[in-house]
Amino acid sequence: MATKPVKLLGFWDSPYVNRVQFALNLKSIDHEFIEENILSKSELLLRSNPVQKKIPVLIHGDEPICESLHIVQYIDEVWTDGPSILPSHPRDRAMSRFWAAYIDEKWLPLLWEVYEAKEEDSRTTLLEKVREGLVLLEAAFVKCSKGKAFFGGDSIGYLDIALGGCLGWLKGIEKLASVKLLDETKTPALLGWAETFCSNEAAKNVVPEPEKLNKCLKEFQAQAAAATK
Amino acid sequence: MATKPVKLLGFWDSPYVNRVQFALNLKSIDHEFIEENILSKSELLLRSNPVQKKIPVLIHGDEPICESLHIVQYIDEVWTDGPSILPSHPRDRAMSRFWAAYIDEKWLPLLWEVYEAKEEDSRTTLLEKVREGLVLLEAAFVKCSKGKAFFGGDSIGYLDIALGGCLGWLKGIEKLASVKLLDETKTPALLGWAETFCSNEAAKNVVPEPEKLNKCLKEFQAQAAAATK
Repeated sequence: MATKPVKLLGFWDSPYVNRVQFALNLKSIDHEFIEENILSKSELLLRSNPVQKKIPVLIHGDEPICESLHIVQYIDEVWTDGPSILPSHPRDRAMSRFWAAYIDEKWLPLLWEVYEAKEEDSRTTLLEKVREGLVLLEAAFVKCSKGKAFFGGDSIGYLDIALGGCLGWLKGIEKLASVKLLDETKTPALLGWAETFCSNEAAKNVVPEPEKLNKCLKEFQAQAAAATK
Repeated sequence: MATKPVKLLGFWDSPYVNRVQFALNLKSIDHEFIEENILSKSELLLRSNPVQKKIPVLIHGDEPICESLHIVQYIDEVWTDGPSILPSHPRDRAMSRFWAAYIDEKWLPLLWEVYEAKEEDSRTTLLEKVREGLVLLEAAFVKCSKGKAFFGGDSIGYLDIALGGCLGWLKGIEKLASVKLLDETKTPALLGWAETFCSNEAAKNVVPEPEKLNKCLKEFQAQAAAATK
């Protein structure tokens, strides 16, 4: 099963796509990356994910798998000879899933809202909420990592991948707004984790560069605005 | 591990709590059900789920597990001697997770919006969206069940539990608005599935009765409105 061709439909600046890239790298899975145009989605994408019409989609043989965290779990379940991504204990798996859902439902949407914010006041309020979320995630890191380098212990796990996918945008916003969101005072453990994560082989050519990301997102917003006029 | 005491913090009318009840019943797990008051949450709930402050919470020994679908997966992973809830094939697991996420993110919120709708026009529009979602879920059922009784095949699985949790509210709305949402024309397979599911031992004393549910939700809305005045 694991020898069928693997394609990833995505875009390099997407936190969700980055997650899948980390998982593929961790498991050393050869794959073809097919770059999508979000403003003009390919037939292959629309056929592969007709309900949500979103990237990422992993196509394994002729089987499309959709949604980043489901894809990460799928990869972990199929390529069992690589390093484990999900923790082995059900309690730890439930905790990882809980915090990953927190990131997707509550925290990551704030980052996009910061990019979309038109006024300084609303951006400041949003940045405060982003920081509050990071303080919660700092506590989760301390609890999950038990003094080791990653949420997953000695190696990158599910929650590292879930939060690691957001590091491009987080760094992009730090650059854009000239602020520090991860710092020595309130989130010292996460600050160290982010450095370690970004220098890991699985991540270092995946996490987008802040300047390139911000330029791309700005162009995207301009194109999207022009398309809806 | 599986012999530690099990407590479920919840409320009988919640789709999310009902899911956990189905899973506990399927695995024949003895447990204590602790009824919560949503307008005045217990210390135990706030301590067990300090981030989301939501039911359901499963407390296994002294370990709280939060969020319905994570709890269902936890139960499946811990009580491995009972019938399996998640499908065995990674592709089928990914498909179950995809549709369960669709239900939670897109479709189930519509049901609550119907209950909250103040005007006939907006209720009609919402009911149409509910029906459109059911048509998608009908196609998913045909694909997943492969001609058998449940999404999970011959026995109740993860997606049966995810959608089955919503049947109380679905029937409640059918009663409230005097409409049929599951019918012989557009969703014949799901109509049969719902009957089979509700008469299963794991579900039959769990799915709320429409009249009792609607009375309770009406009282809850009145109390919530009074509390915010």
